[in-house]
Amino acid sequence: MDLGRVTGTVVATQKNERLAGYKLLIVSLLTLEGKPTGAHVVALDTIGAGVGETVIVVRGSSARQAEGMGGVPVDASIIAIIDSIEVEGTIRYRKSDERWTMG
Amino acid sequence: MDLGRVTGTVVATQKNERLAGYKLLIVSLLTLEGKPTGAHVVALDTIGAGVGETVIVVRGSSARQAEGMGGVPVDASIIAIIDSIEVEGTIRYRKSDERWTMG
Amino acid sequence: MDLGRVTGTVVATQKNERLAGYKLLIVSLLTLEGKPTGAHVVALDTIGAGVGETVIVVRGSSARQAEGMGGVPVDASIIAIIDSIEVEGTIRYRKSDERWTMG
Amino acid sequence: MDLGRVTGTVVATQKNERLAGYKLLIVSLLTLEGKPTGAHVVALDTIGAGVGETVIVVRGSSARQAEGMGGVPVDASIIAIIDSIEVEGTIRYRKSDERWTMG
Amino acid sequence: MDLGRVTGTVVATQKNERLAGYKLLIVSLLTLEGKPTGAHVVALDTIGAGVGETVIVVRGSSARQAEGMGGVPVDASIIAIIDSIEVEGTIRYRKSDERWTMG
Repeated sequence: MDLGRVTGTVVATQKNERLAGYKLLIVSLLTLEGKPTGAHVVALDTIGAGVGETVIVVRGSSARQAEGMGGVPVDASIIAIIDSIEVEGTIRYRKSDERWTMG
Repeated sequence: MDLGRVTGTVVATQKNERLAGYKLLIVSLLTLEGKPTGAHVVALDTIGAGVGETVIVVRGSSARQAEGMGGVPVDASIIAIIDSIEVEGTIRYRKSDERWTMG
Repeated sequence: MDLGRVTGTVVATQKNERLAGYKLLIVSLLTLEGKPTGAHVVALDTIGAGVGETVIVVRGSSARQAEGMGGVPVDASIIAIIDSIEVEGTIRYRKSDERWTMG
Repeated sequence: MDLGRVTGTVVATQKNERLAGYKLLIVSLLTLEGKPTGAHVVALDTIGAGVGETVIVVRGSSARQAEGMGGVPVDASIIAIIDSIEVEGTIRYRKSDERWTMG
Repeated sequence: MDLGRVTGTVVATQKNERLAGYKLLIVSLLTLEGKPTGAHVVALDTIGAGVGETVIVVRGSSARQAEGMGGVPVDASIIAIIDSIEVEGTIRYRKSDERWTMG
């Protein structure tokens, strides 16, 4: 899975009917230092994530594994909102602080 | 999923029979500023998209999740025509304006 | 799916038995200007493609969607021979001309 | 599969319910010389791997093949802890030595 | 599928139980000139390949299509040992010669 930060939203009224009712978010992927890699992905929200949150994105067929989503045509879903990340014994990110500490 | 702009069409009469009746479009992938990344993909149209429209492309096995497409050999499908994109609280793209605003 | 040009063939007698009888081709991937990207893929031929032809390659599990191929261990198949490609209203490639027009 | 070194952990309380009870680790991918490629992946631990260990990561739908994980929305899992790697007849890595030998 | 050369072996005793009995090889990916691309993959051997051989590697869910491997957590398998490769009408590689001819 990939680390990312929710940076935006996409609105589309003309879409595959199986997408009806789902929220589409833009997730900018992050390095382990919390910086944008420059890549982004449009992902389905499955857990109530919002702009500004640091999340985990799952890709491929696994993006359809959430309850009741077997037939939804998506290849990226947000499956977790991150509380903290620890690398080499040091806390890099803590949600309560809303910030990353450089490695 | 990826953001893209439909830029062309592909015609192929000699093809896998399960592709019969489907329209194949060329989608140029876009950055979050609406610029071409330089990459493109040939995608199946599942919602009536046309050249010039900004769309969402789904990849992999999920590209076969639209109704009645279970056995079609495709790895990229257009699943939505985008109305608007908002990034960091600012509208970046609006279909009605047919343009992107730089971030 | 990707645009490519069939540039070669691979012969392998010692192989997974489910591959028996299939033809393995080398496909060099193309830009939208018809130039090689430098990347290639070994793909199964499912429609009688030959060296020199411009084709569409499908990847992943979708490469197994052709009739009778459910259990064949392949991740890339040629599913169409291209007749013509039109980009931004201009014909870029026509099979009958055997050439690409720069964009 | 990819070679990697477990470098960190991710904590997330707000997550897809099917992820409950699984440990999420950060794996930094390695070159064949044992150096970080700069890329990382968040992977599910299926075998009791810990920070500092050199492991094998499997991606995509295969990441869901471990016992009882069919419906878990993950696209990367740690499936092995490496004892040794031999390249071109020379031992490159040995777990008991905790080090890589340059090629 | 990708062209590669088997360059090494990986030993892991602590691993997912479904991997028991399978051989894990390191495959260095090759350009069409037979040079290493610099990328490698850990692949399951399904046909008795050994170090030094030029092979075809299949990725993703298709890597599980060999007989009896449906539930094995692998995303790369060696499915063929290459006898010869012909590009643009010229033999580039012949196993009996153990060498590549530049294009």
